[in-house]
Amino acid sequence: MFTKPTFLIDKEKAIKNIQKIIHKIEATNVDFRPHFKTHQSAEVGAWFRDFGIKKITVSSLDMAIYFAQNGWQNITWAFPINILEIDRINALAKSIKLNLLVENVEVIQFLADNLLYSASIFIKIDTGYGRTGVVWSDTAKIQAILELCNASEKLQAQGFLAHFGHTYQARGKTAIETIYQEGVQRLQRLKQHFVHDFPNLKISVGDTPSCSVLDSFEGVDEIRPGNFVYYDLMQWQIGACTLDEIAVAVACPIVAIHPERQEVVIHGGGVHFSKEFIEKNSKRIYGMIVENKGNKWGNIMENIYLKKLSQEHGIVQVNDAFLQKHKIGDVLKILPVHSCMTANLMRDYVVL
Amino acid sequence: MFTKPTFLIDKEKAIKNIQKIIHKIEATNVDFRPHFKTHQSAEVGAWFRDFGIKKITVSSLDMAIYFAQNGWQNITWAFPINILEIDRINALAKSIKLNLLVENVEVIQFLADNLLYSASIFIKIDTGYGRTGVVWSDTAKIQAILELCNASEKLQAQGFLAHFGHTYQARGKTAIETIYQEGVQRLQRLKQHFVHDFPNLKISVGDTPSCSVLDSFEGVDEIRPGNFVYYDLMQWQIGACTLDEIAVAVACPIVAIHPERQEVVIHGGGVHFSKEFIEKNSKRIYGMIVENKGNKWGNIMENIYLKKLSQEHGIVQVNDAFLQKHKIGDVLKILPVHSCMTANLMRDYVVL
Repeated sequence: MFTKPTFLIDKEKAIKNIQKIIHKIEATNVDFRPHFKTHQSAEVGAWFRDFGIKKITVSSLDMAIYFAQNGWQNITWAFPINILEIDRINALAKSIKLNLLVENVEVIQFLADNLLYSASIFIKIDTGYGRTGVVWSDTAKIQAILELCNASEKLQAQGFLAHFGHTYQARGKTAIETIYQEGVQRLQRLKQHFVHDFPNLKISVGDTPSCSVLDSFEGVDEIRPGNFVYYDLMQWQIGACTLDEIAVAVACPIVAIHPERQEVVIHGGGVHFSKEFIEKNSKRIYGMIVENKGNKWGNIMENIYLKKLSQEHGIVQVNDAFLQKHKIGDVLKILPVHSCMTANLMRDYVVL
Repeated sequence: MFTKPTFLIDKEKAIKNIQKIIHKIEATNVDFRPHFKTHQSAEVGAWFRDFGIKKITVSSLDMAIYFAQNGWQNITWAFPINILEIDRINALAKSIKLNLLVENVEVIQFLADNLLYSASIFIKIDTGYGRTGVVWSDTAKIQAILELCNASEKLQAQGFLAHFGHTYQARGKTAIETIYQEGVQRLQRLKQHFVHDFPNLKISVGDTPSCSVLDSFEGVDEIRPGNFVYYDLMQWQIGACTLDEIAVAVACPIVAIHPERQEVVIHGGGVHFSKEFIEKNSKRIYGMIVENKGNKWGNIMENIYLKKLSQEHGIVQVNDAFLQKHKIGDVLKILPVHSCMTANLMRDYVVL
């Protein structure tokens, strides 16, 4: 029994989510380098290892160090290098095969001057998302980075890495595919542009929406999705998963009931779920409530949802049928909006 | 030097914020029971102890246990009791003076049946915020709770506790005062209603906006603000503090620069700041950047603000003057939107 807010992982569902992507690329030459920022857990990482996965992606140096300590020997730190961390970068580059992201001349020069061990370099390309990276059409800058890379004995140019984060604004398979195809074409054009001087550059992509809805990954060498292991309501809204594929829920006890306004109060707030929401019929939804099924859970309860959060309180919109069946001390299971943020906040978890 | 996202506390400012509220109530009989959910830190708690504070408020049982372990002997757990936690409640009630919140007959009956040690009971009253609590006009329910309380040797009715959370929607002193006065009047009416049978009931209130802008707290016995020790941009927008009174900032290194769109990328994302924002001129602001001043900070940089967050990335809107003075590897200091959420996410901190 869960007596306080508890992050639950349905291992069977998570394993199925991993299997599904692995099956998809089995017959191809595409490498699978899952992003571990979603779960940040050595235990969940081991589930991937059981499938023969040896290469991973992380989003911070802390995570890279944590997973290196847990036996992962080939890690891409998919974030623009923070040059202030050079001492910890050197310590890590000494002990594992480390892939670093560079997107400007200053930083590649800094690495050439300060890196003590060898590392592979991916150039971060912005294919249209607009968050960060060298804009795909800026071949002059890319050329300069590649040349500086080539000039250093410690740096090996690996290829181009992009994150199609704008798929998160897409809804449905066609919209996601359009973004994916445009991005891959732009990366392919770069690869062709540089093929003469740099014949072995690879293309790495990997947002969860694309990796979930696409049937094949022609034109890329590596995919790096992360969220798919758990999925969440945001991915469901995008069309990347079904509700049934969501592998995590937060168990929250009911602490107060307000029948007159059809609301119950749970222990479960912004410090558990994060304050991200999806919008549906112009309502903000911070989580959806599922039927209990032993320790696991079943279907969504229609029209029952987490409507408001403060630090520790959550307010759930309910109806009369719900009120007849529930009392203070009952535990609700709630699908989170953004599982990466929820997992990060909860830290501890229970594997079902 | 701060090489990665670091939560900074300007101790001088925090102490001034504490002093200001203490001065305000010095000549009155109002008790000060600060809420420790904002900082969740034994070290910061000790700053309050230095002012003679002995009573505190927390929002979760975990926090109550943590502060009890750190020597706090009189704690109000200002959250509707989670009856599933009765074993830990009993362990705590055994060792300290514990004040519990009740808002329904089922829970007070449960406590009468299951609490092994004595505890004080505040009835949580909803004076208009609408989150939780007995609605202030429901005197029948309040009477029932008080009577069950009286019938148990272990339970001592302490009074009425309310949180005027709707002051967070107010802007400016007058709007905040209106909400405060209405709430206090409703609590006073309750006190009068029950004065014959229960002559010693107290009134406890305590949102940071009210406690910051009001000059006196007539009509209440206790205030419980928490956020004021740090303040943040949300409180500044409400009118509860000046920018200069904000006592915390997050130091974040610049990792990429995009002059063509006047943006810089920092290491500092949703896992550091939380994804809360304020809106100003229909722009979403996730943090404001302040001038460096040694380890501390000075004034806000006008028109420079954190405009977008993903898990680890933050995108800062800058201008040409900023770009001329900054380079990759520089550290920006950023005032957070909601210091309670930021402190909870960052966990570690540096006291300046």
